[in-house]
Amino acid sequence: MKGTLYGISVGPGDPELITLKAVRIINECEIIAVPRTRGENTLALEIVRNVCDISQKEILYLDFLMSEDRQILKKRHNEIAETLLPYLENGKNIAFLNIGDVSVYSTFSYIAAIIRENGGQISVCAGVTSFCAAAAEMGEPLVQGKNPLVIMPSSCTDFEKFLDADCTAVIMKSGRNSADIMDKLSQKGFENINAVCDCGLATQKIYRGTENIPDKCGYFTLFTAVKEK
Amino acid sequence: MKGTLYGISVGPGDPELITLKAVRIINECEIIAVPRTRGENTLALEIVRNVCDISQKEILYLDFLMSEDRQILKKRHNEIAETLLPYLENGKNIAFLNIGDVSVYSTFSYIAAIIRENGGQISVCAGVTSFCAAAAEMGEPLVQGKNPLVIMPSSCTDFEKFLDADCTAVIMKSGRNSADIMDKLSQKGFENINAVCDCGLATQKIYRGTENIPDKCGYFTLFTAVKEK
Repeated sequence: MKGTLYGISVGPGDPELITLKAVRIINECEIIAVPRTRGENTLALEIVRNVCDISQKEILYLDFLMSEDRQILKKRHNEIAETLLPYLENGKNIAFLNIGDVSVYSTFSYIAAIIRENGGQISVCAGVTSFCAAAAEMGEPLVQGKNPLVIMPSSCTDFEKFLDADCTAVIMKSGRNSADIMDKLSQKGFENINAVCDCGLATQKIYRGTENIPDKCGYFTLFTAVKEK
Repeated sequence: MKGTLYGISVGPGDPELITLKAVRIINECEIIAVPRTRGENTLALEIVRNVCDISQKEILYLDFLMSEDRQILKKRHNEIAETLLPYLENGKNIAFLNIGDVSVYSTFSYIAAIIRENGGQISVCAGVTSFCAAAAEMGEPLVQGKNPLVIMPSSCTDFEKFLDADCTAVIMKSGRNSADIMDKLSQKGFENINAVCDCGLATQKIYRGTENIPDKCGYFTLFTAVKEK
């Protein structure tokens, strides 16, 4: 198979937070693949439109599913891989866009695994994560010294266990449980509790301190909090 | 104070992994500040030299110390801030370079705090972390689904406690204790143990599996390992 499937990290939202490498690879690819799920817009493509001329490129929208059922997800991932394979077989390179960094909680890896099983080539371009961008926007360090940095969705199994330890905690995509998350962080002794909604977008909001964070925030809200000895 | 101190993330080593924003801000600043510690070269400046014309800029080398003594560190941080303040007072903008992302284990935040106390303005530009770049180079996802992602130096207090939980573990700057780290990861049930040395540099090496990782690696070695239910 001659074509390569590139997993391209486009950063958290601000088009300027894309890397030189991502811009170069997108410019070199004939095809742009844009993952989308119900309710989510195609922000990744908007970012790219700001920094690359994509008028001559073929855009493939890939409809991912939000489901807890592994069989249903697996079936959809296979279908998505099957739409990409013919392009790769014909020697076309595909830039598969991802918000944030492609190695951190993205769907690209599932598709990449199937393409690889079918003899396709994969190449990955790293990018800026939402939690690094949020810390930069707040102008505060995320983690210092020897403190561990724990990144997790609030739905993760050992959520409360992790909050027992000294660490910087970053809680992703959890704006809807805002009140509950603030309670838990405070109870476990965390300080400097902040929230960033829609980091890097025109709708971005920064809330400093639990007294200022709303009880419900948007889906793309990220909490940061620190517990140190 | 009219000038701004910019904390600029230049990414992990590959000059192409710098962001468009970092390039723009560096081009707009008259002064480039380059932190260095004994034994470490000025990689950040080499990255920038590849992507910006810095021939007309003033370069300030800032000599940081490696010490466990907080008083000694604090004194040196004050001295470094004092070398920067006159430039800011004169309305000059300074681009303070940082390998990786400036919010993750960097020295910038200590200097930024002192500058802020003295009435100076701070602005931070996020970048690509070494652990995201390492995952991209390996072509494997760092973290998927609902698994937490734990980033830590092996010297952190609760190191072994964190390894009890299901997570993706990233262990930073720990090449010299390679054998010990591999033992602990294996004992705690981690799989897919990999190491990346000098990520993004000409000297980069990727080792997959404990049977292939040397017992001693260079300082800039990063381990990744996964434990999932």
